[in-house]
Amino acid sequence: MSTIDFIENHRSIRKYKKKNIDPKILEKILSAGTRASTSGNMQAYSIIVTTEPSLKQKLLPLHFNQEMVVEAPALITFCGDFHRMRRWLEQRQAPANFDNFMSFMIATIDATLVSQNVALAAEGEGLGVCYLGTTLANCENIGDALNLPPHVIPVVGFAIGYPDEVPDKRDRLPLEAIVHHETYQDYTNVEILNMYARKEKTGWERYNSLPELKKLIEKEGVTNLAQIYTKVKYTKSSHHQYSNTVLNYLQAQQFMENG
Amino acid sequence: MSTIDFIENHRSIRKYKKKNIDPKILEKILSAGTRASTSGNMQAYSIIVTTEPSLKQKLLPLHFNQEMVVEAPALITFCGDFHRMRRWLEQRQAPANFDNFMSFMIATIDATLVSQNVALAAEGEGLGVCYLGTTLANCENIGDALNLPPHVIPVVGFAIGYPDEVPDKRDRLPLEAIVHHETYQDYTNVEILNMYARKEKTGWERYNSLPELKKLIEKEGVTNLAQIYTKVKYTKSSHHQYSNTVLNYLQAQQFMENG
Repeated sequence: MSTIDFIENHRSIRKYKKKNIDPKILEKILSAGTRASTSGNMQAYSIIVTTEPSLKQKLLPLHFNQEMVVEAPALITFCGDFHRMRRWLEQRQAPANFDNFMSFMIATIDATLVSQNVALAAEGEGLGVCYLGTTLANCENIGDALNLPPHVIPVVGFAIGYPDEVPDKRDRLPLEAIVHHETYQDYTNVEILNMYARKEKTGWERYNSLPELKKLIEKEGVTNLAQIYTKVKYTKSSHHQYSNTVLNYLQAQQFMENG
Repeated sequence: MSTIDFIENHRSIRKYKKKNIDPKILEKILSAGTRASTSGNMQAYSIIVTTEPSLKQKLLPLHFNQEMVVEAPALITFCGDFHRMRRWLEQRQAPANFDNFMSFMIATIDATLVSQNVALAAEGEGLGVCYLGTTLANCENIGDALNLPPHVIPVVGFAIGYPDEVPDKRDRLPLEAIVHHETYQDYTNVEILNMYARKEKTGWERYNSLPELKKLIEKEGVTNLAQIYTKVKYTKSSHHQYSNTVLNYLQAQQFMENG
């Protein structure tokens, strides 16, 4: 398969075989990951590979009990990391900068680029992954569990292992909903509804097929996919809470400036 | 070549042939890009492809005069975008949430994952890219030039085209500097210096071979790579300024909450 075929073939894997990942294969994948470009080639990230059952068990509730966390042979957490760089600067009589919001964003982007390289390299080797948005949403507690020093923040992470399922490919918005030529071309209301039409159908069916979610959908009196997103999956209050978690953690990590 | 070979083969391309990208190839690459996982499959991003010479010329100073912006046949800007989603929510009697910091972070991560998919798909088709960190650093002015509506933020971007150079592969820190097993294992001072030894040499040579940078290095009395990063490339004041630019823009875009 060509690179594009592998990229096209992606699906999130939530069921894994009970088969560990050979350390040599893991090394090959992670090494390929580090070929990703990073800002100024600073590589402002660290990669934490967790395989120990007791530690995965500890992380399970922090990832809101997504079973993949313990069922996959490994969990990889990509952290924005300016700690290592600052330790180096200190020893070379250079000011230990990179403790501000822009640095946090650079580190976030670096870690995310590398994660996608690792994900694709893994898929190229027959492995599967499932990203866990809880990594950032619950960054403070996950950071504690992983013993992160200051200036290191969990940004993205995924379960990884050999797939024990071949799920259908998820729906995507049509390309013309996503791509703009030259500058941003805003949408009419009718265009928006047309672009979301397929998603409204497949998404509604998908979420109603998940027993826990179906129960919530009925309880909340939700009648369409848009309301699933805003009243069940990502409610105003949950997002507010995550915002505060991340902002407080950035403050504690000294990434937010007061002027 | 296997997927891993393509990933391993990456180098940033700064010189491009005067050859346009066939719209069909561009479509194939962007379509592959959208296979990237996104939070809740919300696809909270937009992709802006800019090829018009006058518009690239307008963007040139906003990208701090990096010549690639006008010399490459196209510039792709990946924006975190909750505007489209909110337009859809409004029409489906759902609260128009996703106007907070967590949403901005989700959109940032979504856009960055997709960008790396597009970069690798492009390389798989014989194209080359060079990421432009200025996309975020100067997000406000670039957002204006691209006519972005509220809740859309430029996050990452790159020049793209057919390579007219085969640069050496850039140095990377050794894998053991980047990867931690089970939890974060902090470094000793000696480990840090060993990990950065090769980079100190290659980075110093690289930056001293760039005439403009060499002049600054001499002017600032800089004697090692660490000081290049903190006194020439990423000074405290420039990073502070970028932090403020991004934070102010997030405030204007209503992504920062007051409580």
